[in-house]
Amino acid sequence: MLDKLVIFGVGLIGGSLALALKRAGAVQHVVGVGRGGENLRNALELGVVDQAETNAAHAVVDAEIIVLATPVAQIPAVMAAIAPHLSSNVIITDVGSTKSDVINNARQQLPQHIARFIAGHPIAGAEKSGVTAARADLFEGKNVVLTPTAETDPQALQMVRQLWQTTGAKVSEMSAAAHDDIFAAVSHLPHLLAFALVDEIASRPNAAQLFGFAASGFRDFTRIAGSSPEMWRDISMANREALLNELSAYQNELLRLRTLLEKSDGDGLQALFEQASQARNSWMHRQSRK
Amino acid sequence: MLDKLVIFGVGLIGGSLALALKRAGAVQHVVGVGRGGENLRNALELGVVDQAETNAAHAVVDAEIIVLATPVAQIPAVMAAIAPHLSSNVIITDVGSTKSDVINNARQQLPQHIARFIAGHPIAGAEKSGVTAARADLFEGKNVVLTPTAETDPQALQMVRQLWQTTGAKVSEMSAAAHDDIFAAVSHLPHLLAFALVDEIASRPNAAQLFGFAASGFRDFTRIAGSSPEMWRDISMANREALLNELSAYQNELLRLRTLLEKSDGDGLQALFEQASQARNSWMHRQSRK
Repeated sequence: MLDKLVIFGVGLIGGSLALALKRAGAVQHVVGVGRGGENLRNALELGVVDQAETNAAHAVVDAEIIVLATPVAQIPAVMAAIAPHLSSNVIITDVGSTKSDVINNARQQLPQHIARFIAGHPIAGAEKSGVTAARADLFEGKNVVLTPTAETDPQALQMVRQLWQTTGAKVSEMSAAAHDDIFAAVSHLPHLLAFALVDEIASRPNAAQLFGFAASGFRDFTRIAGSSPEMWRDISMANREALLNELSAYQNELLRLRTLLEKSDGDGLQALFEQASQARNSWMHRQSRK
Repeated sequence: MLDKLVIFGVGLIGGSLALALKRAGAVQHVVGVGRGGENLRNALELGVVDQAETNAAHAVVDAEIIVLATPVAQIPAVMAAIAPHLSSNVIITDVGSTKSDVINNARQQLPQHIARFIAGHPIAGAEKSGVTAARADLFEGKNVVLTPTAETDPQALQMVRQLWQTTGAKVSEMSAAAHDDIFAAVSHLPHLLAFALVDEIASRPNAAQLFGFAASGFRDFTRIAGSSPEMWRDISMANREALLNELSAYQNELLRLRTLLEKSDGDGLQALFEQASQARNSWMHRQSRK
């Protein structure tokens, strides 16, 4: 059992991690660190954390594991704030959606602790955010990716792996570059494509009429275009190169599709749609058996 | 009250129309026409239709309104089959997703009846298809678009308008070209984009790994990529020109987005994402108040 876990940013992800570890009896004392606003008060009142702190230096004293669960843009500042106050054996991890940039941040801000900084990404989200949406079962059956480097301390890696396994997550490991490529393809690009479609329609003189006839297909396709613009700016910038590669591949695919349409090649269109619908339906089938 | 309504293709849409009209006491006798397979037997057993017919010529005798609700690709053949057997005052309508092509079909196959052919498009679908998925309330609060032409008989238009209003739908009128442009933007293009993304990912050597890490954002974005390849081939071909225009607009939007990324223009990305997320969220807000 952990004696002291410190979580910077007690929102949906940080709060759900605290609840899952508490439910499992895996932690004695959880300290939540934030700016001292309503969310942090809620975290304390709801029993998600045992102690609420606004002072980073004070919060990290005697911590065994520190989890950085703030918005990604705040991570370098948090790292800089805690760096002078860390014990030599503390383990630090994060929950950000991109990993190469976080590791680069850690190299700069936490050079003494790089072997015990384990970059991580739990693949779990929900429509809602903030600690009031936190749930002990959020990570059950979900993927968590850890991206160790050549310098990583195997024991620290094992500790973070166990932390996530305790929540019911399936933990896998890969390089930060592999992680960023995969999520550029299956998450970051789809967000960009959905933002682009809604932006393009919203820019038109007859936008109100167009939205007036949009139905359930449009609703689901564009759900992710309702996501936080700041968060997606940060993710896009952090994973810019992988995202540009994915965008190129997609632009080429649209050119291919365009050529089929221009040639009135019904068989070619059907073959493309069939490969997509078969892949999508068998993916859903596998998901539902999980 | 209608004495006799004839529906070609008693699936989700045709079946739900029959149920809604029966529930409202708006029709005496509904004839369902099909190939005589299980779906048509189910329609009769479930009481969705009062009579099941496989002979088109026989079915249309004394019909007041004929609804063409088969897959769009079958409509010309159905029109050709019924043309010699129609009474001069019968009203014919359809439920297809594209309208200019159906009107062109009607001009060719039903030249004597073009004034009383009212092209229509109920904007209602569901995950399931077939008559067993039919529901009397499917069209409540949903849009139905009718696309009259200069030759349209106002009385026939009014009859079809009343037919749909009886189901609880909101009926609007516009030209077939306007309809096809709007649905190219808010329905046909999103389907193409979703098919394209899944096809592109499914074509890669590491497709299994990519699908393995895809989560709820990907699931919703690609839901429509699980749709029928044949149906979407037909829609794409029928609405080819409008769809190519929409695809061009979207390709230009992606170029704009790409330039922002290439320049690392975080403010520009955020502004684009903000316009999209605001438009999307206020659309959802309006939808939820309907």
